[in-house]
Amino acid sequence: MSVEEAKKKAAIQAVDDYVKDKMVVGMGSGSTVVYAAQRLAERVKKENLHVKCVPTSFQSYQLCVEQGLPLTSLDVNPALDVDIDGADEIDAQLNLIKGGGGCHVQEKIVAACAKKLVIIADYRKKAQILGQAWKKGVPVEVIPLGYVPLMKKLEAMGGKPKLRMAVAKAGPVVSDNGNFIIDVDFGEIRDPRSLDHQIKMLPGVVETGLFIDMTERAYIGEENGQVTILDRKIQKR
Amino acid sequence: MSVEEAKKKAAIQAVDDYVKDKMVVGMGSGSTVVYAAQRLAERVKKENLHVKCVPTSFQSYQLCVEQGLPLTSLDVNPALDVDIDGADEIDAQLNLIKGGGGCHVQEKIVAACAKKLVIIADYRKKAQILGQAWKKGVPVEVIPLGYVPLMKKLEAMGGKPKLRMAVAKAGPVVSDNGNFIIDVDFGEIRDPRSLDHQIKMLPGVVETGLFIDMTERAYIGEENGQVTILDRKIQKR
Repeated sequence: MSVEEAKKKAAIQAVDDYVKDKMVVGMGSGSTVVYAAQRLAERVKKENLHVKCVPTSFQSYQLCVEQGLPLTSLDVNPALDVDIDGADEIDAQLNLIKGGGGCHVQEKIVAACAKKLVIIADYRKKAQILGQAWKKGVPVEVIPLGYVPLMKKLEAMGGKPKLRMAVAKAGPVVSDNGNFIIDVDFGEIRDPRSLDHQIKMLPGVVETGLFIDMTERAYIGEENGQVTILDRKIQKR
Repeated sequence: MSVEEAKKKAAIQAVDDYVKDKMVVGMGSGSTVVYAAQRLAERVKKENLHVKCVPTSFQSYQLCVEQGLPLTSLDVNPALDVDIDGADEIDAQLNLIKGGGGCHVQEKIVAACAKKLVIIADYRKKAQILGQAWKKGVPVEVIPLGYVPLMKKLEAMGGKPKLRMAVAKAGPVVSDNGNFIIDVDFGEIRDPRSLDHQIKMLPGVVETGLFIDMTERAYIGEENGQVTILDRKIQKR
């Protein structure tokens, strides 16, 4: 089975299991979420569902518009029933690396407002320990003013930082929030919670791509056509 | 003596004590720093000093331009010899509330790059405990997308949050970084370090106005014309 088929199967099953009538749904970003938006649009028509979607990026906003999904915002609906999003890597405790698409700040804000965060991904994203499967490092969004000293500080913490450069414009990527993104390779991350704290507390860091203890369930589309469900109990902290 | 005289005396003494030839100097924001920039410009001319200044806001940048002070940036000079800045409140441990002028994100980035943070202020800014003198609360810069749920979360933490509204434009204040500012009244703040952590870790929070364990010395211009010097040993963490 192709990777795209694996993504699609995971997305469909997540939407079918979690989304019910009258829910406020977070719509994540990335290539896997496209299938979730399509499936949700199908179900809205067929089952006459009254759902509202909170997008997590411009890409996700455009996706909702394209699929005719009713939009809302955190200003109107600050509490979501469920948030369905992709990930760049998922470890055995369902901790995540996100931000390959550069939207992890908005994704994290929305995820932190949802009763349940449900992740959809293909088999390439699974790892025992973060850093084993995703080799591009932890995306860290920073205020542009501070990017040089922050790269030095991230290096002093044991990382290999790289300012993410744009492809369709000159110079660095500018995020949906007007900031820069530094990708920091920390190798295998044994203590992602402590790393997340350490990085986020640096003045000038807006948000890291580490999502710790946030995910309730992950749907993984496997190579053999199956969907693996990974669950964890969320420890409220 | 007037408050303005008190500010000026503190600023002059700080600049005279700390700034030496060839230094890279952080130039803070606010009304007290105006006197520091003026004094530094005088000394540069009279003593032919070769200093470079890193501004912490548009206001501070304009101030340096106005005073003819040589400018540099964190990109060129990521390590500063000293940073001279004001504060809205200073407690007995030299912890600060900053951000009344809405520039605390850049101020904190620059302060975190300086070997020494020196604070200049008038007598009205002193308190035993943060929250006793400054009644407008802790400024928290946030990504605009998240401001409604963040206000709810800050309220759940025991604060009284208020979105800072602009005066010379309609709607909320937009910071130099394009974000919103929520002022959160927590009353007297017994454990500012833990509060700073708790707030900063919320997804969507860019930075708080709590500056903990960062200040080396404060110059306080007193009502009687004296300048009080407050020192602390910086515990490296």
